[in-house]
Amino acid sequence: MSKELVFGHQNPDTDAIVAAMAFAYLQQQLGNDVEAVALGEPNEETSYALRHFAAATPRIIKEASSEVDSVMLVDHNESQQSVADIKDLTVTHVVDHHRIANFETVSPLFYRAEPVGCTSTILLSMFNENKVEIPAQLAGLMMSAIISDTLLMKSPTTTEKDRIAIKTLAEIADIDFESYGLEMLKAGTNLDDKSEAE
Amino acid sequence: MSKELVFGHQNPDTDAIVAAMAFAYLQQQLGNDVEAVALGEPNEETSYALRHFAAATPRIIKEASSEVDSVMLVDHNESQQSVADIKDLTVTHVVDHHRIANFETVSPLFYRAEPVGCTSTILLSMFNENKVEIPAQLAGLMMSAIISDTLLMKSPTTTEKDRIAIKTLAEIADIDFESYGLEMLKAGTNLDDKSEAE
Ligand SMILES: [Mn+2]
Ligand SMILES: [Mn+2]
Ligand SMILES: [Mn+2]
Ligand SMILES: [Mn+2]
Repeated sequence: MSKELVFGHQNPDTDAIVAAMAFAYLQQQLGNDVEAVALGEPNEETSYALRHFAAATPRIIKEASSEVDSVMLVDHNESQQSVADIKDLTVTHVVDHHRIANFETVSPLFYRAEPVGCTSTILLSMFNENKVEIPAQLAGLMMSAIISDTLLMKSPTTTEKDRIAIKTLAEIADIDFESYGLEMLKAGTNLDDKSEAE
Repeated sequence: MSKELVFGHQNPDTDAIVAAMAFAYLQQQLGNDVEAVALGEPNEETSYALRHFAAATPRIIKEASSEVDSVMLVDHNESQQSVADIKDLTVTHVVDHHRIANFETVSPLFYRAEPVGCTSTILLSMFNENKVEIPAQLAGLMMSAIISDTLLMKSPTTTEKDRIAIKTLAEIADIDFESYGLEMLKAGTNLDDKSEAE
């Protein structure tokens, strides 16, 4: 296959950024030429997680069709949440945990959705199904995404599968998810860096 | 969960009938109350397969909302191919190998699509992922569905995964897939039973 870009939704949250990184890594391990990018700057919470696990911020794009024909979507499917030129691109893969709406393809594709709290929870299953090991750094980031989407397992969208995923990934990352999670969520509510307009 | 119905598209082909039976069986093994039904009479080819493997024909329904609130779709997703009252029902699961179009949900759901030749090929992966054994009778039917959709691996939609699936299922069913497959496809082109109007 020719190179594809993988990205989450506009105004990215931690899951949108991290799920793109995790799915790109999985695809790369399966031999595919894929780059994780983002549709906007990481927020404070995501920056905290990227810094904590010493991970680089994905490249930020505003449109994709000038560099690729095909893309993979994570953490969203609705066209109005996607890259500006989504109508000019072929979507080959989606991994998501939201309702399906405003989404239509010309051809068959790979689509994986589950009604769980976070895309990264689904990706953990996919790593296991494909027998691909998750590096400690990526495990820490995926754990951060699930903590973010489930508000440390407090949100009503949290499922048993999310709880198990957090614990599994925390073990791989060798980290205390509760103390780390509180610090990360706190970083996300830090108002210091926000403009007065907000 | 309360009882759900699972079905393939209108004017069912072998995959539409068999994928419903296979996904219902998988869901039942996972502890869910699910019944496989069909949106029309099996065609000649499907009847041959059901007869060969001594399987009962699923109940045929014209609408679903009088008996259930939620349904699972296999081998289709487009609403115009589905049950007449699809708009009054909640779709909780889809397993399919077609493009996505005219499909929208209010809530998150389980959606599994892959660009392969047959829904039953995807279902074989799902049985394996869930570590659920496939009974010989069901394996024979799933093999029949893949032979039907891929025209015995001759159609351009055939993938390597479909080829492996046919062989894997033929071993479970303990059957020579090539001689059986030719007989089954021949039964589907048998014009003897068709009305003069056709
Ligand atoms: Mn998100
Ligand atoms: Mn998410
Ligand atoms: Mn079909
Ligand atoms: Mn089919």
